[in-house]
Amino acid sequence: VIGTPTAERIRSVFQRYVELVTAGDFEAVAALYAEHATVEDPIGTPIHRGRDAIRAFYEASAGSVSVELEGAVRVVGREAACAMVARPKNADGVRIETLDTMTFDDAGQITSMRAYWSPDTIHTE
Amino acid sequence: VIGTPTAERIRSVFQRYVELVTAGDFEAVAALYAEHATVEDPIGTPIHRGRDAIRAFYEASAGSVSVELEGAVRVVGREAACAMVARPKNADGVRIETLDTMTFDDAGQITSMRAYWSPDTIHTE
Repeated sequence: VIGTPTAERIRSVFQRYVELVTAGDFEAVAALYAEHATVEDPIGTPIHRGRDAIRAFYEASAGSVSVELEGAVRVVGREAACAMVARPKNADGVRIETLDTMTFDDAGQITSMRAYWSPDTIHTE
Repeated sequence: VIGTPTAERIRSVFQRYVELVTAGDFEAVAALYAEHATVEDPIGTPIHRGRDAIRAFYEASAGSVSVELEGAVRVVGREAACAMVARPKNADGVRIETLDTMTFDDAGQITSMRAYWSPDTIHTE
């Protein structure tokens, strides 16, 4: 399909996403998103709408956790999902098992993200 | 929240789901779904609406693959997601990396399922 971002491109965005969140580079994280993107993190909390709101969300949270992909990114067309593990930097041994679903536009920017984590998915190692 | 199925209940549905799909028990798979549930498997293909259409879908496909959960089920409220690996029984060494998102009703029945897999996520071991 003309304009659809490649699976390779989408996988690379997931990898950059976890690296930039871990580094606390909230400006670069926000730049992965399209102008009118939405973020629901975790699911059930108020949705952040637009890149400015998204930047503010990551400014408040990025850098506090080390995040890694768990297993392969599953890409289907303009959508993709991957399990992740997040470890708070200030809480030794705490492991948050999360999973993000994302949608993408023609340019390979994220148009929506939803994060599957809750008190139920937080464990102590 | 009153009526919300427990995380333990939702995790058990995921586990039963992969076991029943592997066994080819399409009637029991269909019974995991609510009467007016929807299935989009894989994402981008026509949506199966209602338990009868869902039963017909699994009748045509269940039993042809061995499916296992990969990693922990991530549960947040009435929603959950988990990576999975499916191996076609008639194709040695083929590994389909998939991932299902599901929503649930009060009774713990599945109200919607979407599957993240594509030619991009099929590999030969």
